[in-house]
Amino acid sequence: MDILECMFCKKRYPLDVFSPFCPECREPMFFARARGQRRIKTDEEHPLERYLDFLPLERVDTSLSLGEGNTPLVKLNKVGGPAGLPLTYAKFEVQNPTLSFKDRGTSVAVQKAVSLGFSRIGTVSTGNMAASTAAYGARAGLDTVVLLKEETSLPSLLAAGIFGPRLVRVKGDYGRLFYQSLEIGKKLGIYFMNSIDPVRVEGYKITGFEIFQGLGRRSPDYVFVPLSSGGHLIGLMRSFEDLIGEGFIHRCPTIVGVQAEGCAPLARAFAAGKERYERLDRMQTIAHAISNPAPPGGNVVLKMVREHGGLILSVPDDEILNAQKMLASKEGLFCQPESAVTLAGLIRLSKEKKLAQEEIAVLVLTGSGLKAPEALEAHSLRVEEAELAGLEKKLELGLSRG
Amino acid sequence: MDILECMFCKKRYPLDVFSPFCPECREPMFFARARGQRRIKTDEEHPLERYLDFLPLERVDTSLSLGEGNTPLVKLNKVGGPAGLPLTYAKFEVQNPTLSFKDRGTSVAVQKAVSLGFSRIGTVSTGNMAASTAAYGARAGLDTVVLLKEETSLPSLLAAGIFGPRLVRVKGDYGRLFYQSLEIGKKLGIYFMNSIDPVRVEGYKITGFEIFQGLGRRSPDYVFVPLSSGGHLIGLMRSFEDLIGEGFIHRCPTIVGVQAEGCAPLARAFAAGKERYERLDRMQTIAHAISNPAPPGGNVVLKMVREHGGLILSVPDDEILNAQKMLASKEGLFCQPESAVTLAGLIRLSKEKKLAQEEIAVLVLTGSGLKAPEALEAHSLRVEEAELAGLEKKLELGLSRG
Repeated sequence: MDILECMFCKKRYPLDVFSPFCPECREPMFFARARGQRRIKTDEEHPLERYLDFLPLERVDTSLSLGEGNTPLVKLNKVGGPAGLPLTYAKFEVQNPTLSFKDRGTSVAVQKAVSLGFSRIGTVSTGNMAASTAAYGARAGLDTVVLLKEETSLPSLLAAGIFGPRLVRVKGDYGRLFYQSLEIGKKLGIYFMNSIDPVRVEGYKITGFEIFQGLGRRSPDYVFVPLSSGGHLIGLMRSFEDLIGEGFIHRCPTIVGVQAEGCAPLARAFAAGKERYERLDRMQTIAHAISNPAPPGGNVVLKMVREHGGLILSVPDDEILNAQKMLASKEGLFCQPESAVTLAGLIRLSKEKKLAQEEIAVLVLTGSGLKAPEALEAHSLRVEEAELAGLEKKLELGLSRG
Repeated sequence: MDILECMFCKKRYPLDVFSPFCPECREPMFFARARGQRRIKTDEEHPLERYLDFLPLERVDTSLSLGEGNTPLVKLNKVGGPAGLPLTYAKFEVQNPTLSFKDRGTSVAVQKAVSLGFSRIGTVSTGNMAASTAAYGARAGLDTVVLLKEETSLPSLLAAGIFGPRLVRVKGDYGRLFYQSLEIGKKLGIYFMNSIDPVRVEGYKITGFEIFQGLGRRSPDYVFVPLSSGGHLIGLMRSFEDLIGEGFIHRCPTIVGVQAEGCAPLARAFAAGKERYERLDRMQTIAHAISNPAPPGGNVVLKMVREHGGLILSVPDDEILNAQKMLASKEGLFCQPESAVTLAGLIRLSKEKKLAQEEIAVLVLTGSGLKAPEALEAHSLRVEEAELAGLEKKLELGLSRG
């Protein structure tokens, strides 16, 4: 049976997808640890089948899948080790069906939606989640509603709209929309699989399992992950909890949640040693996709990070853009600025604290750089001009200069 | 040793990356069939290692890899079978490091460049190939030159520029630039790995091998692939030749090259039963990335298609856009219009010729829809507006209408 547990009062309740919050503590709840031994089915290639024992699913209908997961774990050759940093890998979540990590969670949530008999799903999003939910909804033949912030850009609208969901642009407070969508969903039978939906969060665990597998069945020392609503970080922490629970590893890596300085309510609370964060009124960062002034999973994140010896950092926009450029120009990996916060966080941490070169760090690069064309324009670009006749000379001059 | 063979006069020559053309026939040459038994190393996960026996490489340096390949083969649930078409799969090449199939070829060509001692590489491109070559060049620490058509769009420039190559916009005839780049490369020691570079083309074979593996070690009946310069189709045909050569399969699938009607020199020549195509002066299609009026591999393609019982079709823009929308809204797969020509081609072929439902067709979806924002804007998009207070009512009305 599907049982959720409040991480604060430890009380348990049956799963209610319309209200996955503790009635007393008001905090989001997540799946209670299952009983019995769970194993990794290494014969299975499909991640949902391979890690089925760890997911809140009875079985997997692969016809609903779009080929999510099994993303590369790329060793960084120039950034990392040689720069006095730990041996660093990138978990390149760009190579998912809709080009972001959201597919990890959506794929599991849509499996659940179909098994529970829903014919309508929805989400509240401005970008990656909208595209991901719309794609999996289309795949499963579900009516899909995407509720968008008023100022959602046209490219984001189009990238989700191509999948044919119902797009509704909503005027008003975005934080309230998150909670209200669940209430409306209950009345209209729409399963809103938002950022911290407990089923979605279980899907994010697979990234952690794949990191463990990719490193030869061992845990890294650090995992850096962009931090916004909290769902992704919570899922990653839960994956390592599961691996410890089954005796595969003995301690949790240091999970480092990284926020953009221009919207860092959790980094602020963490630095001040607070148990609860304060909602921000203003935000100003190029990393739009992780700028949530009132992250719904925020207090859970603070609690988990405290309990597992994790960290929360923030980095300014110039360091974010610099990290994005480094990952592309030195390693060949083009990600969103929102993903590049992980490298900026690693560099910053290494200045504050001596990181050993024999340690292993993993950066979770969450989405494609093509998702953020505005940020791309922030990078200066030098384009030379040549006539066909003068091309050889032109190229040669450049070479001798180089 | 690396030996190329002319497919017309059958003469063989040692590989010269600066001039991979037959001195007599003037046509591009490709690797001569290697002697000795070749096997698929099924224990290896990395595609380059798994299929190494079939590649012109002595060994693989995985530190140059970005995690290319192993893309999903997604069974189409609604498009295909139920519509009176064959059982259809999509090979979703979007899930490559730079979001297109080009990485298949670039990854192998960069391995070769490094093993041959090159420190400079280049390419001639306006889009996918520029980004792919720049990414792998950055990864390998090579000086990378990208020669661009004069009218290359800013988004394409940025998407390649982030990797830090030397970008040169060249005025003049794009077809001539292709050949001239090779001559300049010879003088300056720059290995220009262009669209029909023989090493690049060997990399495209891996897609064919993965299709064979993904179908349970069998060949499909049809493979639909977008057709432009010809390199991709030639690589796919060569993969099935290899599989036949090693006795894995007994006949080549019907390979169907699909062009956009607004620029279809090869489809025209094929329909007229000609051995050589005529260069076009004008082109007009939304599928920019496959609009090559003088494809350098064109005559080789015509010869191979004839010999292997393949087909070449063309489809108009409205059918291309419709196919793009179908793949996204019915299957959850968002690809470029240039990739959607494959589905448009399948639909068209099924109208001309009875295709059996027990046959198997594979559509090679070559690149992400995000690569072509202009095409995206061609799709009409309906966005509803709501106030937070009236949202429930609004959604409910929509549901009862649906």
